[in-house]
Amino acid sequence: MELVYEGKSKRVWRVGGLYHLEFKDEVTAGDGAVRAAAPGKGALAAELSAVLFAHLAARGVATHFVEYKPPNVLVAVPAEVAPVEVVVRFKAYGSQLKRMPRLKPLQPLSKPLVEFHLKDDALHDPLIYPQDAVEAGLLTWEELARVEAASLRAAEALRELYGAAGCDLLDVKFEFGRTPRGLVLVDEISGDTFRVLCRGEHLDKEYFRKTRDVEGLLRRYRELLEITKAALGRAGGGAVRQ
Amino acid sequence: MELVYEGKSKRVWRVGGLYHLEFKDEVTAGDGAVRAAAPGKGALAAELSAVLFAHLAARGVATHFVEYKPPNVLVAVPAEVAPVEVVVRFKAYGSQLKRMPRLKPLQPLSKPLVEFHLKDDALHDPLIYPQDAVEAGLLTWEELARVEAASLRAAEALRELYGAAGCDLLDVKFEFGRTPRGLVLVDEISGDTFRVLCRGEHLDKEYFRKTRDVEGLLRRYRELLEITKAALGRAGGGAVRQ
Repeated sequence: MELVYEGKSKRVWRVGGLYHLEFKDEVTAGDGAVRAAAPGKGALAAELSAVLFAHLAARGVATHFVEYKPPNVLVAVPAEVAPVEVVVRFKAYGSQLKRMPRLKPLQPLSKPLVEFHLKDDALHDPLIYPQDAVEAGLLTWEELARVEAASLRAAEALRELYGAAGCDLLDVKFEFGRTPRGLVLVDEISGDTFRVLCRGEHLDKEYFRKTRDVEGLLRRYRELLEITKAALGRAGGGAVRQ
Repeated sequence: MELVYEGKSKRVWRVGGLYHLEFKDEVTAGDGAVRAAAPGKGALAAELSAVLFAHLAARGVATHFVEYKPPNVLVAVPAEVAPVEVVVRFKAYGSQLKRMPRLKPLQPLSKPLVEFHLKDDALHDPLIYPQDAVEAGLLTWEELARVEAASLRAAEALRELYGAAGCDLLDVKFEFGRTPRGLVLVDEISGDTFRVLCRGEHLDKEYFRKTRDVEGLLRRYRELLEITKAALGRAGGGAVRQ
């Protein structure tokens, strides 16, 4: 096992010809300035990512996901991750309100907004234009078009899924990586990477950002996983395979 | 005469049914943090704006320009200015390099980039997405499409003009305002609002940003005006009318 990458929320190991994403029992906020132990969070994020990657694959979105290894590991196809974050927004929130204070919080957007950020901690993941990523050689024009289409498709599928559960998906962040089969959705899909309101309450990391309450966050992540599995018609947990 | 607006570089007066834009003899940098007297700059910026507005009008770009009143006044159609700046880039420079450090300074872009900023001093004119302006009610979708098309057309015309003079237009900032005849190009077009390299040297405000040398800037602005008039085939100055 060779450590390929260690980030704030997971370690990535090379195991044979595959990657093992080991989700940590830690929660961070403010670009990592705040960090707290969160026992069980890794398993919750890994399992939620697993069921959501499988769901998106069934909806025609290519992902790196291979298999869920309980409690806290995703097995994935190795991918060279592009240093770009794609945010799809359905309602105004977060950094969109900071740059455009005239928007009302939770104002519905007239169409989904697909937004690009450079992954760069020192620059605080600045907003960029899609063309910036191409000019800097991070994506080709063709890859950009596929990233935009896949992000929209994945975001719409998640919004529909949570909508059916009576929840409201506000926005979601995606990352993409190059594999021999082309660009695929990578990283994780969890309460750390999307914002969802259920009965007016954040079942996502926004709760921790506002309260620093780890226990409350873990309760919400357990509820989010249950809601997701129920919406997918999966009563049990267990191994998920693409 | 009623003062409609006073900004860093000009005052706008209502005179009868028109606006008089009075260009100041001042140069500023760093969001106005640096400010210096620059005798003659107002006249240079007013005359350059006049000849460039007239040139763009002849190229089919609707502008607010009516008449040049020497030395330092533009007469213009009253317009309600949208709090948005449109930047058209041909080569990587300025804030584009800050958000995307992998770009090389002066790297040619594969196509012109049309970029939007919110006019907001407190937020330092942040980069926004075109859709943000629509969602916040600053522009309609139809106005946005016209702003993008007019910005591209105007920027290409300026790039061609300076290219014919052996210079290299890097980027240019436009503002737009609503008039009874629709959205038109407003504000000024000068070395304060575009960057142009002639024989490798900035004949624009970048020179002052780097050197704080007012006299050198005024020499460059005089040269820029002469180059522009020569390129337009206008030997003399005098009154310019749309």
